[in-house]
Amino acid sequence: MAEKLRSWSASTLNERKPSVSAVKPVKVRRADPSGTLETDFLAVEEPLEIRLVSRSEQGVREQTVSITMRTPGREAELAVGFLFGEGIIRQPSDIDRIDKGGPSPNKGGCNIVRVFLTPDSQPSTEQLKRHFYMTSSCGVCGKASIEALAMRNVPSVAGLDLRLSKRSISKLSNRLRSSQSIFDLTGGLHAAGLFDCRGELVRIQEDVGRHNAVDKVIGEEFMLGNIPLSERILMVSGRTSFEILQKAVMAGIPIVAGVGAPSSLAVELALHFGVTLFGFCRGSGFNVYSGEERLAC
Amino acid sequence: MAEKLRSWSASTLNERKPSVSAVKPVKVRRADPSGTLETDFLAVEEPLEIRLVSRSEQGVREQTVSITMRTPGREAELAVGFLFGEGIIRQPSDIDRIDKGGPSPNKGGCNIVRVFLTPDSQPSTEQLKRHFYMTSSCGVCGKASIEALAMRNVPSVAGLDLRLSKRSISKLSNRLRSSQSIFDLTGGLHAAGLFDCRGELVRIQEDVGRHNAVDKVIGEEFMLGNIPLSERILMVSGRTSFEILQKAVMAGIPIVAGVGAPSSLAVELALHFGVTLFGFCRGSGFNVYSGEERLAC
Repeated sequence: MAEKLRSWSASTLNERKPSVSAVKPVKVRRADPSGTLETDFLAVEEPLEIRLVSRSEQGVREQTVSITMRTPGREAELAVGFLFGEGIIRQPSDIDRIDKGGPSPNKGGCNIVRVFLTPDSQPSTEQLKRHFYMTSSCGVCGKASIEALAMRNVPSVAGLDLRLSKRSISKLSNRLRSSQSIFDLTGGLHAAGLFDCRGELVRIQEDVGRHNAVDKVIGEEFMLGNIPLSERILMVSGRTSFEILQKAVMAGIPIVAGVGAPSSLAVELALHFGVTLFGFCRGSGFNVYSGEERLAC
Repeated sequence: MAEKLRSWSASTLNERKPSVSAVKPVKVRRADPSGTLETDFLAVEEPLEIRLVSRSEQGVREQTVSITMRTPGREAELAVGFLFGEGIIRQPSDIDRIDKGGPSPNKGGCNIVRVFLTPDSQPSTEQLKRHFYMTSSCGVCGKASIEALAMRNVPSVAGLDLRLSKRSISKLSNRLRSSQSIFDLTGGLHAAGLFDCRGELVRIQEDVGRHNAVDKVIGEEFMLGNIPLSERILMVSGRTSFEILQKAVMAGIPIVAGVGAPSSLAVELALHFGVTLFGFCRGSGFNVYSGEERLAC
């Protein structure tokens, strides 16, 4: 299946232009002295339903596991990245095939993705619930969320010897920003990028949802059989939250950087799993919140 | 119940200082030539579980309707604002009482909110699903999402004669930013503010989740019996999405402004329900995406 997914995905790997369905022209009145009515471009937001299709002795079961507001494009990668980040699938061989369907008002888009699992890789019903926030004793809490991830046998990345120089870190935000083709048109969209240890951009996706952009880049690597991403740095255009760090940890990424601030729980999760976390990465300035040993001179 | 909620809420109405549990000190290494280790403050992110408790002839039923990652503080307002925005409750008299509970690692916080409904106000099971994205014919799509809101008899605000001068609009972003006390400490947090037609700030909340900040300000107004908010402007610190516009429309707010860009679906929803939508509100500049008639000179 890894081969099948690889060939399916490879033709679009080097796309840098936004797809037709990702932006939409609108008439906008500018509040400058001229007050002109101009055509501007908006980032498209549309719901996407992710369905999981599994087979058992009782027959075929199809269930909706997520409905997310997202920017059209890379729906299969988004679905696969999401399912992997939630621990529902673990390797490309868990997937039999992926169907995209449903009418969409935007040319080339789709609004339903069906991920068909192979008979050997049926997730438990428990895995389909976002049960990792919960413990029976105290309801939900941040500590329980982190412990539940650990209980899923998600490995720590503490032992990984990836290093990044200050000079490379200072390149990240400019590289990410200058590669945001939809942002250039619309002036507002989240981005997630994967970089190598020299600070060179390997892969980027943009989306109205920050978590979707991360799912798309990680989903693409998953399809290519590149997990764990032990040689990669994940950078997001905004703040880093628990959810972003969770996705990085699941993918085995040792370094995460954000243009904005991290949350308290993002830092706690980074410390627990040995992730190096940089924040406020803007030009040559940045802060180090955890895993300082990966910072080279 | 409106009276009860009002007295419950009034004592904290004018709080502007962040609560102890909303920020957390951490040691941070700065990437400047000195490379000093300093104490910085992070915005706290913790999960909150919202439970709905209803009574019927079959007995008491308690169910989790949402688990959201949020910044501690104003849990009751967040829960109520969320339930109102989803159409599950309609007026303060739908609520019998609100209990906060569950241990929290942060002093003064809680991680479970139970909203007890009065016997006369039982929501249908259908209302508890986010069914408004769905139609049976085509799965999910943006058009269906808007139509589903309309089918819930959510009124248009097209007839409301609220006007805002260019000068007042240009005040909004500075007023919002200068009132963000948690942002001042942490350097990164979403905010939602309610303003009057002179551009004066009436209410503000900050949260790691943009939608939570909006739920908190609208939830507080709901408790005070102030819905519909036909004389108010909602401003958010970031981008405007479908979800933000949905919450505004449910609360009867005629004008929405964002520091960032709107999404395509936010503009479509604004046009459908007669909401005036401003974007890129930064200093004296802004764009008008819908409802230009509310723009005074």
